[in-house]
Amino acid sequence: MKTTTASALAPPASGPLPTTMRALVKERAGPGMSLREVPVPAYGPTDVLIRVRKAGVCGTDQHIWNWDPWAASRVHPPRIIGHEFMGTVAAVGDLVKSVAVGERVSGEGHIADGTCLLCRTGQPHICANVKVIGVDRDGCFADYIAMPESNVWKLDAAVPDVWAAIFDPFGNAVHTVSEAHVSFKSVLITGAGAIGLMAVAVAAAAGASTIVAVDPNPHKRALAKQLGAHAAFDPADPDLRRAVLKLTGDAGPDVLLEMSGSAAALESGLSLLRHGGRAALLGISAGKVTLDVSELIVLKGVTLVGIFGRKMWATWYQMEALVKDRRVDLASIISHVIPFERFEECFTTLKAHDAVKIVMDLEA
Amino acid sequence: MKTTTASALAPPASGPLPTTMRALVKERAGPGMSLREVPVPAYGPTDVLIRVRKAGVCGTDQHIWNWDPWAASRVHPPRIIGHEFMGTVAAVGDLVKSVAVGERVSGEGHIADGTCLLCRTGQPHICANVKVIGVDRDGCFADYIAMPESNVWKLDAAVPDVWAAIFDPFGNAVHTVSEAHVSFKSVLITGAGAIGLMAVAVAAAAGASTIVAVDPNPHKRALAKQLGAHAAFDPADPDLRRAVLKLTGDAGPDVLLEMSGSAAALESGLSLLRHGGRAALLGISAGKVTLDVSELIVLKGVTLVGIFGRKMWATWYQMEALVKDRRVDLASIISHVIPFERFEECFTTLKAHDAVKIVMDLEA
Amino acid sequence: MKTTTASALAPPASGPLPTTMRALVKERAGPGMSLREVPVPAYGPTDVLIRVRKAGVCGTDQHIWNWDPWAASRVHPPRIIGHEFMGTVAAVGDLVKSVAVGERVSGEGHIADGTCLLCRTGQPHICANVKVIGVDRDGCFADYIAMPESNVWKLDAAVPDVWAAIFDPFGNAVHTVSEAHVSFKSVLITGAGAIGLMAVAVAAAAGASTIVAVDPNPHKRALAKQLGAHAAFDPADPDLRRAVLKLTGDAGPDVLLEMSGSAAALESGLSLLRHGGRAALLGISAGKVTLDVSELIVLKGVTLVGIFGRKMWATWYQMEALVKDRRVDLASIISHVIPFERFEECFTTLKAHDAVKIVMDLEA
Amino acid sequence: MKTTTASALAPPASGPLPTTMRALVKERAGPGMSLREVPVPAYGPTDVLIRVRKAGVCGTDQHIWNWDPWAASRVHPPRIIGHEFMGTVAAVGDLVKSVAVGERVSGEGHIADGTCLLCRTGQPHICANVKVIGVDRDGCFADYIAMPESNVWKLDAAVPDVWAAIFDPFGNAVHTVSEAHVSFKSVLITGAGAIGLMAVAVAAAAGASTIVAVDPNPHKRALAKQLGAHAAFDPADPDLRRAVLKLTGDAGPDVLLEMSGSAAALESGLSLLRHGGRAALLGISAGKVTLDVSELIVLKGVTLVGIFGRKMWATWYQMEALVKDRRVDLASIISHVIPFERFEECFTTLKAHDAVKIVMDLEA
Repeated sequence: MKTTTASALAPPASGPLPTTMRALVKERAGPGMSLREVPVPAYGPTDVLIRVRKAGVCGTDQHIWNWDPWAASRVHPPRIIGHEFMGTVAAVGDLVKSVAVGERVSGEGHIADGTCLLCRTGQPHICANVKVIGVDRDGCFADYIAMPESNVWKLDAAVPDVWAAIFDPFGNAVHTVSEAHVSFKSVLITGAGAIGLMAVAVAAAAGASTIVAVDPNPHKRALAKQLGAHAAFDPADPDLRRAVLKLTGDAGPDVLLEMSGSAAALESGLSLLRHGGRAALLGISAGKVTLDVSELIVLKGVTLVGIFGRKMWATWYQMEALVKDRRVDLASIISHVIPFERFEECFTTLKAHDAVKIVMDLEA
Repeated sequence: MKTTTASALAPPASGPLPTTMRALVKERAGPGMSLREVPVPAYGPTDVLIRVRKAGVCGTDQHIWNWDPWAASRVHPPRIIGHEFMGTVAAVGDLVKSVAVGERVSGEGHIADGTCLLCRTGQPHICANVKVIGVDRDGCFADYIAMPESNVWKLDAAVPDVWAAIFDPFGNAVHTVSEAHVSFKSVLITGAGAIGLMAVAVAAAAGASTIVAVDPNPHKRALAKQLGAHAAFDPADPDLRRAVLKLTGDAGPDVLLEMSGSAAALESGLSLLRHGGRAALLGISAGKVTLDVSELIVLKGVTLVGIFGRKMWATWYQMEALVKDRRVDLASIISHVIPFERFEECFTTLKAHDAVKIVMDLEA
Repeated sequence: MKTTTASALAPPASGPLPTTMRALVKERAGPGMSLREVPVPAYGPTDVLIRVRKAGVCGTDQHIWNWDPWAASRVHPPRIIGHEFMGTVAAVGDLVKSVAVGERVSGEGHIADGTCLLCRTGQPHICANVKVIGVDRDGCFADYIAMPESNVWKLDAAVPDVWAAIFDPFGNAVHTVSEAHVSFKSVLITGAGAIGLMAVAVAAAAGASTIVAVDPNPHKRALAKQLGAHAAFDPADPDLRRAVLKLTGDAGPDVLLEMSGSAAALESGLSLLRHGGRAALLGISAGKVTLDVSELIVLKGVTLVGIFGRKMWATWYQMEALVKDRRVDLASIISHVIPFERFEECFTTLKAHDAVKIVMDLEA
Repeated sequence: MKTTTASALAPPASGPLPTTMRALVKERAGPGMSLREVPVPAYGPTDVLIRVRKAGVCGTDQHIWNWDPWAASRVHPPRIIGHEFMGTVAAVGDLVKSVAVGERVSGEGHIADGTCLLCRTGQPHICANVKVIGVDRDGCFADYIAMPESNVWKLDAAVPDVWAAIFDPFGNAVHTVSEAHVSFKSVLITGAGAIGLMAVAVAAAAGASTIVAVDPNPHKRALAKQLGAHAAFDPADPDLRRAVLKLTGDAGPDVLLEMSGSAAALESGLSLLRHGGRAALLGISAGKVTLDVSELIVLKGVTLVGIFGRKMWATWYQMEALVKDRRVDLASIISHVIPFERFEECFTTLKAHDAVKIVMDLEA
């Protein structure tokens, strides 16, 4: 990839396509990223070229920025980063039928192979050969991104741009809640980061009877309560166990949503979960976890469900329905909107105490 | 419990009830058990008194014999041991309606409390307050056992006595296979002890498309193939992974049945399981397990189901149907039938290489 | 049953049990019922005697009053009528453990046989040998009713008396909604009588995304909207089809709840339901229904679920959770509370245009 | 479509593509079909052109031949008929990646729109805009057929040609059995035509505990027993009800598979089905059905599932696994293989008493 330092200009809203664009590029192994001017990506006959307008910043992006062991083993520079976005269709391949230039879209960033057992049985979200934009192929922290027509989602007019930009993590939350079957159930949510907080709001909309959140950050606990949690606790609270059991009829919560990736949260959550309960695990731990599988899973007759990505497209239909009539309000989740050129600020802010979700504005 | 050394006589098949009986008793903390003469148990108005005729010997009994840490923490001597059995109804309480003296019965050894959320929602098999016969209350290694009418199962005439004696572990196998949804699926079974071997036969009868067993014991691997496994491997076989993937269409098995309690088997099984697969865990590990939960469960979108006991009574109906017309043949699972008085031989034989399932004969 | 004309007095709140009581009795084949003084029912060692304080009046009671063909074929006079109630435990049999005198209770009026396949596999609510109080055995329109301990439900202090009196039909609504899996789904409800209206409120609490009610009665349509329906239509509205499709993304609703028993509603509902949709049928038609099964069910890949009674006790736990924190408000469903002595007024009012649910007050 | 009377020659197995081919064409409204010489179909960049070698004859084809009311309302002549087939890839469009010239394939004849809610949520088999080959677009009773790459299924070498030719109806049977959840269950199958007989064999392979078939044709009843039914009855047998209940533990079968399209069979099957049972309906009735929905579905708590087509591609994977190791043997289902030129004989034979499944041979 031939690149130069990017100019500070967003492409014009209309007119002919430029040949180059701004992009946030991981140029080589090691920490950091650079804003560069690179060629606008090519697109094939079944592809769509999208002008990116808003993009969400994710913990995964920060792992790549920091070049942690996971990033070092998975990402092959040079690579344009970013996988959460919305924008406008700038061009379409000759065989594209369902999307037209000028339409407002988001996109599923997991490009499944389309030919494996999982893809051919309605489960492309867990295709073993998935390529993730911004990780395995070029991403959306750029003025343009190209992706297959079959990965593009047309946005309902009722969905605000900044909300549409975070449909990727919102989809994680919706998919987790949906697989956990929370309707009529008491729900314990461990981890109230951006996705955990979205899960609180989604669980409330999905008919959970009682929602309890656990997070060490008091600001996020307050947000959890604002979004629908009946109570929120610090995991270090010595009264946690007693309080959760009291809120859940002494048997313990029916459902656990593990959204933190913390081994201690997983253990604590499973130990609170009632016999016969259901746990949906979205959080990713850094390494192996030491767990009393016999006591916490086998003897209690618990069901554990691993959650990856979002269903294509069941989750997207659910997201649209939830936000269209504001049964879930994403506004309080988005703590910062920052112009693309100030990308470094996104990554420093992400570490700040009260940051929840940060959206990059490529039009600002 | 006042006891004397037991006489060597089984009670008469008919006539008035004796006042004392033979019983295998854990008399005090520490290894071993003793055959003693003890009072025939009392039974209340809703209880059934059963004359035990055949009883299965389980690994749990051996843990209690050996007085391992689990036994030391759970069992309170003096206690009559044993939880797998069949016999004949010797007497019934005044309010008992569904069972009559002389009927041939087995019994569910897990006495649920009947009043908790789980019991009142059709899941007494995972009641948190369960009392297990032979562990938490007196068991069936005795001429008589008393249990609630609601725990008694009337035996179909087509079920042989020695088969009926092991409906408890057979129920573990049937419940595990049933919860794993094996019909049309490829199945990997780790651990081919008595229950693992029964699971092979049950999975075949339940419509599994391909069955692969893994066990270090060549005799048990041979039995697994005889009972319906398409292949059986030593876990130490360096070719294991390649061979299993080849047998399961390269994606890996659809279903894992973990019947060994080995942490290595759990890890290996989960690593072979295909994305989106389902794992049913019956095996109990001695302590905590260190597991890459993120890679093996979360990112693969796997579902894990903990299995305890047997469903009351869905599993029992399934067992009866499977054995009535010999779709599952338990004869090859029962390697030894040993007279009650030679109980020590049961426990030494259980450790032998080619022992699978041992039944005590209280009539011999 | 020996009876005399009932006195106008409710039994005292405490003190020794009286020997006779007031009861609304179907004395012989033919229309009408009579208030009589009859013996307080006997109760066995596993039974509970309940002093009835509030009782709901159901369409079924009116069928029995009118002595329609169903009633004539099913009810054998003399019979005390009534199956929806709450009260206080007045006495308990010797073996009763889980309920005590003075406790506030409601009861499941379907007495299952406890021994059949359905009862022994967690589905007593569809026991083929069910006996219904007020239909097959004496009911609750009386100062006292006796029923097995296993059919008694202890009431949470947060549930008002008049709400507890209608847990039977409320349970129909909750069970229907629960089996229909409405979370994240658009729902069409045909029939907005008392149970249909409760279903609207329950579907909203259970996470339905869009709720549309259909009923010819404008008062009930208005109530449906008040309780959570996004829209409510007259079935005669020529614009019905277009309007429902517009509200449900053109594909049609994901879920149909048929609560009217009208053949036309069933046909119309199924024709609106989307391909692959799920229909839960609670409404009972008077006779056979003529239906295009091929077009409406087979070719659309629809799932139909028949609903009877309420789950014991999953539905009762769900009811308690829904009303405890007022996620469902039954106050607007209960249109009239009428003293027991004015029982005739209950039946005439039930036919009135704006009556929804009528509760008899046995304490007034 | 310009056509001439077809020559009697199959195209050469290799070499350049011919420009014309033989095809069985419905030329105009009214009974009958004609063998004509027509242009080889064009194929686009994402299409595959398949040389048809074997094709199954279906009742639907006969409806079209007879020009019954359904055919008259649905089919627009001129149209090439036929939807069950196997063949060899003759050419592929420029963008086709997963299939190559010379590969042996079958194809899913239901062309879903790919863009609707159902298609985008893993249920294209019930796409409301489906186009069926041989009905809504040109079919496979021709030397060549063109279809999208995404509808092509590559055949395993272990599947015989004549079996592969009937994967379409075999898929109906497999999909029906799969949705009915027969493992560990007793199954009643009404209708033992080709698909009903396949369902018998599939239910046995899928783990059904007891299988009872009902059909008026004694030859087909005999075949049903040969394929795995424990018993087979004439629907006119006055002892039918008693006999079926005896075979299914008095409660009635757990599962009903309605494969006949007969209203009487549906009613009889539902009346035998146990409370809480599951019925999968594949058979298509000619018109409306009069049914006691209240007694047969609602009050019994029955679940009814409408079945259309086959799952893409879950059913196809299941079919391959079932036939690869001969757990299902289709040989006894295929009663006749008839050369293409003698197509009239196919339709007359189809009406014969002992015909089950007829395959046209386009290579003979």
